[in-house]
Amino acid sequence: MAGNSFGKLFRITTFGESHGPAIGVVIDGCPANLCIDLEEVQNELNRRRPGQSALVTKRDESDRVQVLSGIFENRTTGAPIALLIPNEDARSKDYSHLKDTFRPSHADFTYQSKYGHRDYRGGGRSSARETAARVAAGAIAKQYLQAKGIYISGWVSQVGRISCTTPHTELNLSLTEASPVRCPEPATAAAMINHIQEVKKAGDSVGGIVSCVVTGCPAGLGEPVFDKLHAELGKAMLGINACKGFEIGSGFAAASMLGSDHNDLFSQQGEQIVTKTNYSGGVQGGISNGMDVYFRCAFKPVATILQEQESVDAEGNTIQLQGKGRHDPCVVPRAVPIVEAMAALVVMDYHLLQFGIK
Amino acid sequence: MAGNSFGKLFRITTFGESHGPAIGVVIDGCPANLCIDLEEVQNELNRRRPGQSALVTKRDESDRVQVLSGIFENRTTGAPIALLIPNEDARSKDYSHLKDTFRPSHADFTYQSKYGHRDYRGGGRSSARETAARVAAGAIAKQYLQAKGIYISGWVSQVGRISCTTPHTELNLSLTEASPVRCPEPATAAAMINHIQEVKKAGDSVGGIVSCVVTGCPAGLGEPVFDKLHAELGKAMLGINACKGFEIGSGFAAASMLGSDHNDLFSQQGEQIVTKTNYSGGVQGGISNGMDVYFRCAFKPVATILQEQESVDAEGNTIQLQGKGRHDPCVVPRAVPIVEAMAALVVMDYHLLQFGIK
Amino acid sequence: MAGNSFGKLFRITTFGESHGPAIGVVIDGCPANLCIDLEEVQNELNRRRPGQSALVTKRDESDRVQVLSGIFENRTTGAPIALLIPNEDARSKDYSHLKDTFRPSHADFTYQSKYGHRDYRGGGRSSARETAARVAAGAIAKQYLQAKGIYISGWVSQVGRISCTTPHTELNLSLTEASPVRCPEPATAAAMINHIQEVKKAGDSVGGIVSCVVTGCPAGLGEPVFDKLHAELGKAMLGINACKGFEIGSGFAAASMLGSDHNDLFSQQGEQIVTKTNYSGGVQGGISNGMDVYFRCAFKPVATILQEQESVDAEGNTIQLQGKGRHDPCVVPRAVPIVEAMAALVVMDYHLLQFGIK
Amino acid sequence: MAGNSFGKLFRITTFGESHGPAIGVVIDGCPANLCIDLEEVQNELNRRRPGQSALVTKRDESDRVQVLSGIFENRTTGAPIALLIPNEDARSKDYSHLKDTFRPSHADFTYQSKYGHRDYRGGGRSSARETAARVAAGAIAKQYLQAKGIYISGWVSQVGRISCTTPHTELNLSLTEASPVRCPEPATAAAMINHIQEVKKAGDSVGGIVSCVVTGCPAGLGEPVFDKLHAELGKAMLGINACKGFEIGSGFAAASMLGSDHNDLFSQQGEQIVTKTNYSGGVQGGISNGMDVYFRCAFKPVATILQEQESVDAEGNTIQLQGKGRHDPCVVPRAVPIVEAMAALVVMDYHLLQFGIK
Repeated sequence: MAGNSFGKLFRITTFGESHGPAIGVVIDGCPANLCIDLEEVQNELNRRRPGQSALVTKRDESDRVQVLSGIFENRTTGAPIALLIPNEDARSKDYSHLKDTFRPSHADFTYQSKYGHRDYRGGGRSSARETAARVAAGAIAKQYLQAKGIYISGWVSQVGRISCTTPHTELNLSLTEASPVRCPEPATAAAMINHIQEVKKAGDSVGGIVSCVVTGCPAGLGEPVFDKLHAELGKAMLGINACKGFEIGSGFAAASMLGSDHNDLFSQQGEQIVTKTNYSGGVQGGISNGMDVYFRCAFKPVATILQEQESVDAEGNTIQLQGKGRHDPCVVPRAVPIVEAMAALVVMDYHLLQFGIK
Repeated sequence: MAGNSFGKLFRITTFGESHGPAIGVVIDGCPANLCIDLEEVQNELNRRRPGQSALVTKRDESDRVQVLSGIFENRTTGAPIALLIPNEDARSKDYSHLKDTFRPSHADFTYQSKYGHRDYRGGGRSSARETAARVAAGAIAKQYLQAKGIYISGWVSQVGRISCTTPHTELNLSLTEASPVRCPEPATAAAMINHIQEVKKAGDSVGGIVSCVVTGCPAGLGEPVFDKLHAELGKAMLGINACKGFEIGSGFAAASMLGSDHNDLFSQQGEQIVTKTNYSGGVQGGISNGMDVYFRCAFKPVATILQEQESVDAEGNTIQLQGKGRHDPCVVPRAVPIVEAMAALVVMDYHLLQFGIK
Repeated sequence: MAGNSFGKLFRITTFGESHGPAIGVVIDGCPANLCIDLEEVQNELNRRRPGQSALVTKRDESDRVQVLSGIFENRTTGAPIALLIPNEDARSKDYSHLKDTFRPSHADFTYQSKYGHRDYRGGGRSSARETAARVAAGAIAKQYLQAKGIYISGWVSQVGRISCTTPHTELNLSLTEASPVRCPEPATAAAMINHIQEVKKAGDSVGGIVSCVVTGCPAGLGEPVFDKLHAELGKAMLGINACKGFEIGSGFAAASMLGSDHNDLFSQQGEQIVTKTNYSGGVQGGISNGMDVYFRCAFKPVATILQEQESVDAEGNTIQLQGKGRHDPCVVPRAVPIVEAMAALVVMDYHLLQFGIK
Repeated sequence: MAGNSFGKLFRITTFGESHGPAIGVVIDGCPANLCIDLEEVQNELNRRRPGQSALVTKRDESDRVQVLSGIFENRTTGAPIALLIPNEDARSKDYSHLKDTFRPSHADFTYQSKYGHRDYRGGGRSSARETAARVAAGAIAKQYLQAKGIYISGWVSQVGRISCTTPHTELNLSLTEASPVRCPEPATAAAMINHIQEVKKAGDSVGGIVSCVVTGCPAGLGEPVFDKLHAELGKAMLGINACKGFEIGSGFAAASMLGSDHNDLFSQQGEQIVTKTNYSGGVQGGISNGMDVYFRCAFKPVATILQEQESVDAEGNTIQLQGKGRHDPCVVPRAVPIVEAMAALVVMDYHLLQFGIK
């Protein structure tokens, strides 16, 4: 109930604080007999980890994942898979000045309200470092899905007011990883990088949007009422730090549309029934229809900025805060593997629900 | 796992098809000793039920709710509360022509893919009629919350391209119910009504946006990782038929903003710590901070239109479909009580988690 | 969390009080496309219902089950199956004298302690009438299992000090239903009937044991740690009113045994690996091994007796209580279909977990 | 769903194999602000760990527990508490001869059937070593409960045919820990020790019974239908390796009793309503009534014996097996802290459900 677990049949539980000894995840319900490529798990963690480029925080951690259980002779056994990622570069003293203050738009005040005290070092449990555990688990889900021909690709489609102009179906997503900002449209990527560097120079931060597409998803995934496929995807994405909005297919644009334009007409294509358009984003009535599942996630600007801001301390006194420490001016490039991981967890879980653990 | 239940401590399970004998809901985990005003439950159902104005479907059902269990001498007993709403005006023959066809952007194809057959009468389980059961349960949650000073108010903020211009904090929400389109800005409401009538005349449908605010929500609701308050609200809303997007606080607009603008600065107000702005939408780090919880839900245009559309039948043959039956040209006015009900379910559940069943 | 639901993938939620309008059950997660024989469901209810013989309570209810949802053209649709059993013979006035008193070894005092008030009519929710809803759901599970060659047979193996002497593997279980006491050993059955009639004449009640065997259960059902097959069976049985003990295979007798006697040696039988003995009761390490799953449930004597007993009222005053109403002197004959139903729910649920919803 | 988690609000997930790098547990839902005495956690682990006396296996592990998260400055933070116990004395080669064989009454065959392969080293996940993780989590629950005046005491009441003769209410439970066999009746303890040593000398093993009492448990714990307090306790105990039976209060003896003897008459004692007898075992209608909660768990003889036994290998060939490695001739002395831990987990969880997380 305390919300550190996610999933039904493929269920993960994450633990660990930013400046504790380690973060980690226990995966319960992974089918037995999967061959796991641990290098692939490490690669996904590397995509998320800080220190990759000038655009992101300099905190440098190797983020080496250790397997504690559940994998024997390279194959899953059906037992819980525990993965541990030790914290290496945890400079706790960076944060001691924050013990009794509430940083604006951080979780300091709400944690204090809810729990009565908090691990204030680096945000403790509210740190985005927790998402490394999700990425590790998601990397296993990805391997499961890829073996079934299901692929998940995220990219940065907007940073500040700069956004991709090409429709997503025409983007060359193989270019995403080549760009430090993870935008597959090279000119837009360049503009985004410029913008982030300006924002960084000003000690400020900026928001953005991560788009994501799931290809190869068979029809039939999703439950029709409360646990619609896109409802679970939405919960998964809104549970990522700094995510403020989620939309599937036409999303908010649907509000302005007419039914005669928005309806996705069915047609027969070879053996398969397909839709001519995909405003539905691959989900109808909560259940996948075999088309690409396409969605977008809005991220707010990072709350930590290197400018002086007014706030209050625990006694309610007005104080001036100056951001310190190592932080990203823009979270979206590193959010891409997290979005993909959460999508993989949802799709694998719903796949198991529909098709069983075989 | 099959997704007909929602909530943790205050957990509802809905059942029933559009053209079966009844729909209903079982509420498990309602605290004992609550006085329930059944007329208020009925009022909420009346807000959702069809046939209220020229803007909505003419299907006319009294939607009288019956209590089967869990309430004794007007008070909840702690036992499951079962509420039944018999179906009265179920003209099944209206739908027999749809048995072997897949209506565009409906759930016909995906249900058939998932289950192998389906109750095709009026959409069966995928009918928005299922949401009446949620409204009934939500009405009980609302009574619980109101006794604690927590109020939930939804309204239509956009229909097609017509949207409210006043910031939501300045709207007079007491005007919402006076308008058949449930928009509290009278001039905008009139324009929306005109637009819906035009769309209806054209046999078409149009999308829209429902906004919602929770006032009086104490700090501390929400779980910090996967079960963030807004993640659960997002799932709740995306689980409503036709909802394609959800955003909290600044939402998608946050993507274009700078941190220096977006951060909500804390200040002391009397005994309370408040924020000067509320881009967070009342939730920080997944936990309520005591400010208004504010969010918006995008709805697509209703899939059934009274125009000829191309589709395929179960054998893959191309067919022409002509919408029949009784349908809404725009779903958002009737979606308002559903959005409110789902919000009430989430907030009550998280309130119980944080403050116990007393 | 409030405990009116049972099961993971095949999940039931029961509702209803003894003297309310109806009791019922919602089944979520039943696979689609099962043909349901409603007469069979009714037959199972008839086995449980009162008024069948001179041995049991005279409360006479036809217990006619109504299907509210989830079955269309005789086949399950994958939607929740709601079953309703109206209460017919609810003489509430029989119980008004109990409003402020706590009957010994009933749930009156604990319900009052937990909830602050209670539906005192006929025990309200604590009435064994609630188990009719389980029997209805279990009847659907039985049909699912029978189609896979899995059969569940319960019988009365002890009443008071009278118990079956034949080892269960040599009993002719087809004789069970022929006996009003549901004991398949005719001479023992006759002795049990005599004993119950004597106890009844004395205004007293007596306990007993229900034994149960699941045949045709494939190897692989059960989860290895907390959700062991026999742990879930144990919970299911201990959740039946008046059940005080559960044992599987050798059970409590195992405490006195040596490993060299108790170990079930494996041998090859045709294509299958079997065990030469079955002290394990068909479960090893929490997982079925393909042998008969065999267990026993102890039931206490019914708490209502027609003798004067001392007790206290809500103010703590000493009072004398005299049982009234219509009650069974011995619960075990009617417990047999309930034990079977709960076993069917567990086995079907674990079957779905292991082999999927197909 | 895969059954490595236990509990609702206070929910634990265990992981780890007997011969992997570590075992551990993640506790989600522990209230914030509890002071945790880690030495007490270690003491509980020491009670369970092997190598304590000549009666138990010689495998010698220090079983030092490490805290990875959730405790900051000695207080719980509300975040998940991850506890790790590295495996030290894991001699994997002891087990390589078992790779393709199925030991009688072990989980080898069922794991192989369920998962298709298995970590055969020391039983892998099926090893009782997994229960160390439960003991660690239970030690935290015990601290929570003790602060509320709730104490849990287990003891060995039977080994083979030797059992305690004193009624449990008259036993001096403070003597339990003084005895290597954990029986508080000194003469019986001595006889049990003799018996175990004889059994050990014969290369055999023997079963036994662990009894347990919860004192100070307030009225109102437990949910009335499927999640009755004793049903959850039963599941908890039957989920312990080698446990074959569970009974509460009168248990199986109730089957032979008359209602007029078995009913627990209420009386007023000072401010409290108590029962004169306690055949109910402190639970009525599934809910605690404020009296001692008393139950018993039957354990089979350890499956590994140092005698030659017939079995089959993975190809179905008949083989002769000879137990090797280090094993307990009788499991019940070391089962006492496990029974207590599982009881603590259940009682704490139900306490949180009833009284909230404060």
